[in-house]
Amino acid sequence: MRICLINPNTTTSMTDLMVRAAQAAAGSGTEIVGVTSSMGPASIESHYDEALAVPGVLAAITADRVAETPCDAYVLACFGDPGLDAAREIADAPVLGIAQAAMALAALVGGGFSVVTTLSRTIGRADELTHRYGVAGLCRGLHACDIPVLELETDPDTEAVLTDACARALTDDGSESVVLGCGGMADLAARISAKIGAPVIDGVAAAVRLAEALVPVAGFPGPASGEYSRPPAKRYTGMLAGFERL
Amino acid sequence: MRICLINPNTTTSMTDLMVRAAQAAAGSGTEIVGVTSSMGPASIESHYDEALAVPGVLAAITADRVAETPCDAYVLACFGDPGLDAAREIADAPVLGIAQAAMALAALVGGGFSVVTTLSRTIGRADELTHRYGVAGLCRGLHACDIPVLELETDPDTEAVLTDACARALTDDGSESVVLGCGGMADLAARISAKIGAPVIDGVAAAVRLAEALVPVAGFPGPASGEYSRPPAKRYTGMLAGFERL
Amino acid sequence: MRICLINPNTTTSMTDLMVRAAQAAAGSGTEIVGVTSSMGPASIESHYDEALAVPGVLAAITADRVAETPCDAYVLACFGDPGLDAAREIADAPVLGIAQAAMALAALVGGGFSVVTTLSRTIGRADELTHRYGVAGLCRGLHACDIPVLELETDPDTEAVLTDACARALTDDGSESVVLGCGGMADLAARISAKIGAPVIDGVAAAVRLAEALVPVAGFPGPASGEYSRPPAKRYTGMLAGFERL
Amino acid sequence: MRICLINPNTTTSMTDLMVRAAQAAAGSGTEIVGVTSSMGPASIESHYDEALAVPGVLAAITADRVAETPCDAYVLACFGDPGLDAAREIADAPVLGIAQAAMALAALVGGGFSVVTTLSRTIGRADELTHRYGVAGLCRGLHACDIPVLELETDPDTEAVLTDACARALTDDGSESVVLGCGGMADLAARISAKIGAPVIDGVAAAVRLAEALVPVAGFPGPASGEYSRPPAKRYTGMLAGFERL
Amino acid sequence: MRICLINPNTTTSMTDLMVRAAQAAAGSGTEIVGVTSSMGPASIESHYDEALAVPGVLAAITADRVAETPCDAYVLACFGDPGLDAAREIADAPVLGIAQAAMALAALVGGGFSVVTTLSRTIGRADELTHRYGVAGLCRGLHACDIPVLELETDPDTEAVLTDACARALTDDGSESVVLGCGGMADLAARISAKIGAPVIDGVAAAVRLAEALVPVAGFPGPASGEYSRPPAKRYTGMLAGFERL
Amino acid sequence: MRICLINPNTTTSMTDLMVRAAQAAAGSGTEIVGVTSSMGPASIESHYDEALAVPGVLAAITADRVAETPCDAYVLACFGDPGLDAAREIADAPVLGIAQAAMALAALVGGGFSVVTTLSRTIGRADELTHRYGVAGLCRGLHACDIPVLELETDPDTEAVLTDACARALTDDGSESVVLGCGGMADLAARISAKIGAPVIDGVAAAVRLAEALVPVAGFPGPASGEYSRPPAKRYTGMLAGFERL
Repeated sequence: MRICLINPNTTTSMTDLMVRAAQAAAGSGTEIVGVTSSMGPASIESHYDEALAVPGVLAAITADRVAETPCDAYVLACFGDPGLDAAREIADAPVLGIAQAAMALAALVGGGFSVVTTLSRTIGRADELTHRYGVAGLCRGLHACDIPVLELETDPDTEAVLTDACARALTDDGSESVVLGCGGMADLAARISAKIGAPVIDGVAAAVRLAEALVPVAGFPGPASGEYSRPPAKRYTGMLAGFERL
Repeated sequence: MRICLINPNTTTSMTDLMVRAAQAAAGSGTEIVGVTSSMGPASIESHYDEALAVPGVLAAITADRVAETPCDAYVLACFGDPGLDAAREIADAPVLGIAQAAMALAALVGGGFSVVTTLSRTIGRADELTHRYGVAGLCRGLHACDIPVLELETDPDTEAVLTDACARALTDDGSESVVLGCGGMADLAARISAKIGAPVIDGVAAAVRLAEALVPVAGFPGPASGEYSRPPAKRYTGMLAGFERL
Repeated sequence: MRICLINPNTTTSMTDLMVRAAQAAAGSGTEIVGVTSSMGPASIESHYDEALAVPGVLAAITADRVAETPCDAYVLACFGDPGLDAAREIADAPVLGIAQAAMALAALVGGGFSVVTTLSRTIGRADELTHRYGVAGLCRGLHACDIPVLELETDPDTEAVLTDACARALTDDGSESVVLGCGGMADLAARISAKIGAPVIDGVAAAVRLAEALVPVAGFPGPASGEYSRPPAKRYTGMLAGFERL
Repeated sequence: MRICLINPNTTTSMTDLMVRAAQAAAGSGTEIVGVTSSMGPASIESHYDEALAVPGVLAAITADRVAETPCDAYVLACFGDPGLDAAREIADAPVLGIAQAAMALAALVGGGFSVVTTLSRTIGRADELTHRYGVAGLCRGLHACDIPVLELETDPDTEAVLTDACARALTDDGSESVVLGCGGMADLAARISAKIGAPVIDGVAAAVRLAEALVPVAGFPGPASGEYSRPPAKRYTGMLAGFERL
Repeated sequence: MRICLINPNTTTSMTDLMVRAAQAAAGSGTEIVGVTSSMGPASIESHYDEALAVPGVLAAITADRVAETPCDAYVLACFGDPGLDAAREIADAPVLGIAQAAMALAALVGGGFSVVTTLSRTIGRADELTHRYGVAGLCRGLHACDIPVLELETDPDTEAVLTDACARALTDDGSESVVLGCGGMADLAARISAKIGAPVIDGVAAAVRLAEALVPVAGFPGPASGEYSRPPAKRYTGMLAGFERL
Repeated sequence: MRICLINPNTTTSMTDLMVRAAQAAAGSGTEIVGVTSSMGPASIESHYDEALAVPGVLAAITADRVAETPCDAYVLACFGDPGLDAAREIADAPVLGIAQAAMALAALVGGGFSVVTTLSRTIGRADELTHRYGVAGLCRGLHACDIPVLELETDPDTEAVLTDACARALTDDGSESVVLGCGGMADLAARISAKIGAPVIDGVAAAVRLAEALVPVAGFPGPASGEYSRPPAKRYTGMLAGFERL
């Protein structure tokens, strides 16, 4: 099975980090194909960044879809799940966002979970997603560690700060598990989990494994007239004219 | 007061139709400034179209914001409210989507409302918006008339089909009002209302009047550290490099 | 356009204050017609007061409706929205409560909002209204400033106390805007907004502008057999016999 | 124990019918004291009627409270529960509405329930109450039998029509029980129950028995600073001046 | 009327305590028949204990149902309401859990309520029940006193600790009443209520009185094809073979 | 990895069928260990059956936990997820119910889903689970095929009846996928999916793959003082005395 991990931002070092985590999480027969977005923001820390990350995500899926050997599933590796609905319309295979995947695994652990994310301004989006995915009642708290996305890798304090934030979230919220709210934290989940003594869920690994779970489900793409059926063809113009060809 | 009506699709005849409806709805001191998106789909009938309409919306707001005399409010004239959160981050003034505006007015009528939209595949998005805007409990039914967006103006049966759909929605759902689910229906609300004997709410007129209501509220942009504060600056690359400059 | 602002309590100085705020908020072609309730409590600070403010509200609407030139809309200027449903049954025009109006505008600002009201015992009613109007998910906190309604005008500390309460609510709740929870605070919104750097929404101004937005919507009164159609005629007796004539 | 059954409308024959049903439902040591409202509508079939039934309800409670031997609990015998919150503020004892009581008993039966009421225009109010009382998720359907309140007693078809409506509701909604949506149906519950083979719950009997259950709970009136503590004293004027004296 | 109080744990002293409280709460014509579970845990302080308390509950109901004079209602006297749905399927009479009963009475008091239970690990179950019973919106707080179930009777500090926890819950949560979260607290409600000046609701007394309210409702068992109709007969084997005979 | 599939009923042919489906769904390194409950009902078609299936489930987990090589995860292969919370308390590894697993995968497909189950009386339980697992908003319909559990394997019409029910559910509910509501349907998902052209999700396969996804998440068992920490030791007596030893 080949899973296409799309990094919705344009920072290749972050793609590399996430592909490593994805490959480590994948089953023995699974190959991770990493794709860095070809356009848009270097990191995603606002609604603006996220909205402008979507074209790159869709371009990546379209490129893979018309490749000789399309992938068997797509993982959108940004905790805002940018473009998830649109991606499902154009893909012929399952599409998973790492936020939905991480929250789904946390729900399967049982009990409530906490989210620890990067900047506090992204909490609004995470909260909205808990409602969209039906897990708002299980999410006991949303917390920021206030480290910008691109400093997660370089800040020497990242692991200590995140570990502390996860430990406090677990206790203060009375949660059974913690969800990490950024793809750039993918390499830290296991170590933090060992330190705090509770499941710590990284969305990249979660999405890869859930993709492996969804691929064998027959029936993709879904109903021909459904919400996610192929978009009606139409004229695209201007800078985005290339998106006319699906 | 100057209100910038942004047509998120690239079809200028639809911009013209909506500007006319907006100007007719506006107060005597209000000027409507119509802007057609410079890029993306000719109409918006899927999650894919909607996602790719967002860059044009954001470009239009940024262009206006750095103009000599920025507008006092922005109306996103597509019933999916594409890019609403991102637009609020970069605008220094209120931003209204026509779906949120129409549903807000319907809630103020009192009782339940029905939505009559274009293609059935867009019902999923409308339903999601009723939840995001808190009116899911008031929305008694979502119905499609199955006329594509760009045929609303030219199909000779549009008014009859819509009137019939609105009348049936009112009765079957036991609603007090009907919301029209497409900016391209903006010129029909009053006539349909007269025929079915109940309020019929067009989002374009609704958004213009609600913008007039919001502009005098001081305090935009809001709290400096809030969810809608200005996005952190960062590198944008590829086709979307121009979006780096806010 | 003529909008009838009904003060549901019997204190004329408060009517005057609210009419001034309403007229200041109204468009150039709008005349505010102030009406003080002819019966009931001098201020509304309990469920008991609110229930007994309703007959005066309904009498005012009936009186206006049979006047030579009925008004084009009605504003119920008490944050409990007393008698809103009943008023909608007997009016031939839109009826707005200032709580619903203020909350609707806050929802259109985007993000969450806080409410700052008078006495803590009224928080239960405000909370109930956030649920009825569908905005409970957006309301991040309900706070009391513990100044009785009729002392708002005379207490020299009112503005300072309210400003402080609004600033704290904004920060503690992580809100994007603040709603003032009493018609008697109508003159303070703009000044507090300037001080705290965020939208502060007064329901009186909000209701006037939303009334201006609703009046042009055709179709009032709504469906002939709907929830808000004219009440069935019947015998009224005792002290309230006069209410038999609608 | 003495329970004061207040008929919020002014029709004494309906009071008599409900007192008989209440007495039949009461325990051996319970005396039902029937009170017919001294003012307002002869029956309650609209928001307008209901709002104007509230003063009579509050007057009845105040009169009883200052009587030599106040009652031990109050039952508001109209399915809209008019004035319930206000009544709780002024009573020194439990106050029950027949809608809340009937729905509470239906919830204790287990599974879902249906409501069969009089006129379809009252369904909106019943629906709102299911949300206020937390049982919206258990209420599987709201149905009208289209018999006006005051014709329930005289229409020879009442029992047959109601039985049929209850039987259909049970089947169509997949409910475990049926709630009768009007105090005027109090004498029919047992017979309809026998015919349809399922619990049929009349709010008058339900409220009497639940009042008997609540009276022994110590601690009324509740917390001194709570939502239902005694209303602040203030000036009442006009036709309602008498309500100043609590 | 005879009400069967089933203690789902095997500790007879706790049965005795609860039967005394139940008899004290019952009407003059009501006899309480106490039954201690014949199998399973000595107290119920985990999901494991609760699950394994269910067979004893079902055995007790089946034994009573085939007795010469079956009881008129069943009370499951453990705050987790173990086996409630299954018990309703096999009983020919109403079945009440003390958690549902206590929460139902608290809802009828009006306003919000707090729960004070034994160990913090049981809060998850109590929270789940507030959702199942539709009262989650009324439950303002869930608190543990950290006294194990079987020490409630013997710990000399029980009353003081509980009184303190109830008083704090009332204030901190802004509640109108407190629900005691364990059948073993049944004898303390009245004294704590007197001390904190608010209704304190014990589920045992609540369930007995609500059973008295439900018994006269005709129609048990409910619809022949409903969710709670008699289970289909089938083979039971192993240690539980005896449960085949209903 | 070794996954213990526990059949909560006592019918070994059904265990065999589910183990085959589980092994087919499992990754190459995964061994499925099938366990048939040693006590209780031959099939689970009521709340009664489900409650009495729980002891066998818990006994199976305890037996495995003290085995030389405990399994890495547990799958409870009955659509009611009997004993899930209790099982999580005593297991040192993830525990999945097939209902939660199937619904989680359906949510990851995107859009709404329908459930097709066996007997209509089990719809109440399935509905309750959609609420517990947070997917009630995504579940567009619950349908019964009215084939008893143990006849699924032998009834020659099973596949045709189920295919028809799934196809109708998809269309009538406007769903994107269908969830099969019984472990005994595990072998039919792929064939039905091919026929109706949409994902059809069997909980057994779903749970196996999700178990494979959860096992690598470190941190089981979770927080030492959490809801799912090991139950307090205590005395068990009677027929269930053996459950004292965990």
